[in-house]
Amino acid sequence: MDIAAAMDRAVEASYAAMGVSSPNPPVGAVILAADGTLAGVGATQPPGGPHAEVMALRAAGEAARGGTAIVTLEPCNHTGRTGPCSQALIEAGVAEVHYAVGDPNPVAAGGADTLRAAGVRVTGGVAADTVENGPLRPWLTRQRLGRPMVTAKIAAGVDGRIAAPDGTSQWITGPEARDHAHRQRAHLDAIVIGTGTALADNPTLTARTSAGGLYPQQPSRVVLGHRDLPADANLRDDTGGPLVLVRSHDPADVLAALPDALWVLVEGGPHILGAFFDAGLVDEVHAYVAPMVLGAGRSSVEIPGVITLADAKRFRTAHTTTLGDDVLITLARRSPTIRQD
Amino acid sequence: MDIAAAMDRAVEASYAAMGVSSPNPPVGAVILAADGTLAGVGATQPPGGPHAEVMALRAAGEAARGGTAIVTLEPCNHTGRTGPCSQALIEAGVAEVHYAVGDPNPVAAGGADTLRAAGVRVTGGVAADTVENGPLRPWLTRQRLGRPMVTAKIAAGVDGRIAAPDGTSQWITGPEARDHAHRQRAHLDAIVIGTGTALADNPTLTARTSAGGLYPQQPSRVVLGHRDLPADANLRDDTGGPLVLVRSHDPADVLAALPDALWVLVEGGPHILGAFFDAGLVDEVHAYVAPMVLGAGRSSVEIPGVITLADAKRFRTAHTTTLGDDVLITLARRSPTIRQD
Repeated sequence: MDIAAAMDRAVEASYAAMGVSSPNPPVGAVILAADGTLAGVGATQPPGGPHAEVMALRAAGEAARGGTAIVTLEPCNHTGRTGPCSQALIEAGVAEVHYAVGDPNPVAAGGADTLRAAGVRVTGGVAADTVENGPLRPWLTRQRLGRPMVTAKIAAGVDGRIAAPDGTSQWITGPEARDHAHRQRAHLDAIVIGTGTALADNPTLTARTSAGGLYPQQPSRVVLGHRDLPADANLRDDTGGPLVLVRSHDPADVLAALPDALWVLVEGGPHILGAFFDAGLVDEVHAYVAPMVLGAGRSSVEIPGVITLADAKRFRTAHTTTLGDDVLITLARRSPTIRQD
Repeated sequence: MDIAAAMDRAVEASYAAMGVSSPNPPVGAVILAADGTLAGVGATQPPGGPHAEVMALRAAGEAARGGTAIVTLEPCNHTGRTGPCSQALIEAGVAEVHYAVGDPNPVAAGGADTLRAAGVRVTGGVAADTVENGPLRPWLTRQRLGRPMVTAKIAAGVDGRIAAPDGTSQWITGPEARDHAHRQRAHLDAIVIGTGTALADNPTLTARTSAGGLYPQQPSRVVLGHRDLPADANLRDDTGGPLVLVRSHDPADVLAALPDALWVLVEGGPHILGAFFDAGLVDEVHAYVAPMVLGAGRSSVEIPGVITLADAKRFRTAHTTTLGDDVLITLARRSPTIRQD
């Protein structure tokens, strides 16, 4: 297996750690034996558990000696709840390390230097764009901005309506789009809705497979606003992630209530989404567009302060994906946040 | 050149006849010489002028003898303002004819039989899907439904807003999307707007190239409603297509005012679009989606009668195209109109 293919495997492994590893970075690692064969794959475990490199080294065993480690993030150099990964790689006798992204955290950085000092050949920057804009983007956002990455979700017809005048909205998007949204939930730390949406739709906000089962990782369920939830609200069941009630409409209060979260999805309603857009706190938009015109009913986003077109919140189109009969348009910041520092 | 490549050339040629040939079908034709080399290409001329086959035969001259004709529509069999194309092909000594779509018009049909009776080898159905859903779709719609094909155009942010609260809307989409819309205009018979849009935006509704010049084909400019246009309205200049004032809000009156039109684009405003959607007269939607959230202002479509989600107008996603930083989502009828009969 070559280094590029091994990095693809490491990236794939790291996706499984998203939402699980928080507040630690979701990292993936692959160990190739000295003859280039795949010897081990690992991903970051929940806080207090082993990091990706240690998981991959355990899987590789003695095959790691003289081999190569491929990691999505520069191996850490500090002793926290676990020992430094740079030391573990040296002790296992790894001869070569390739990583994607340098560690921006001054406490943990320096792993590459430690490895080099021990005679290990080290290469950084392998597939760095893929990893920075993929599985490590939420964590890099928190490292650099001190808050989680925020994605705003919209599911609407081509005229932007998310519900008919009588409030009916099931279903605007089709099963493939809904499955996609549930797969995303399984990588999130938290989903945010307002009390209006909670009371009107009585959602569960769990991450479910298309067969109806629960994904292993369930995001926190955050409800924003001053109204109470009824005792029998679906959000109060214990099959999903923790329920967090934030008695405020201020997006900053939501983010403060989630100090360990790396990635937060704001689902609505329109005024909650508007508050996040207005505060400049939206890093990404997932717009699921259904092949439908409602022609009446609620629009997806309401921002009270917008008067003229110059007030519009502009993004760039990052990519489009067809999901069954719907289209997912992903918008990103025009200047990537994680490069602003 | 093989038959498939020649049909591609014929289809390409036929696009140039869209809007020009109306009410006749925009057809493209290619003549290959007996040795298979390209001898002539032609497209339908304006009404009273030669059809595509005759244009291609003229270009080919004596090279047509023993050669092959590739045509997007079954050669016509009747004498109207021009003689039958089947006869012209026989007289030129063409040995073989391949066409895409059979002529559904009983007056003109029978060309294939006439050709066969004269000893010409004839094959129909070549690339039929491409042609039926491409350049001939507007004409087939008129043949089968007795009205033009209607496309509804929307240009909005991901929240479906087409203008800010103060009415500003220039520009929501970028230059690539606007160029695309102008190229479409050059293939249309008519663009429809309401007096509200005409008075608010004072548009020209001409088809302009990205350099600012006028395309040779300019669609009729149809304004719907009871208010008068000022004497100095841009729509009254003589650089664009004919100005047609329809003193009604009924979409049926618009279509009746355009008896020769094959393809009509409805641009807005929201209530005009809503009336066409409500009447079930929209065959296709061109939704240009800009990477922007307005959060306030007018939505693209208003349909007064919609109460619940079952009232929504549902389509299917035909394709998506990236145009600069915008995305064009093309919706089509769930059951293709042209196959309903």
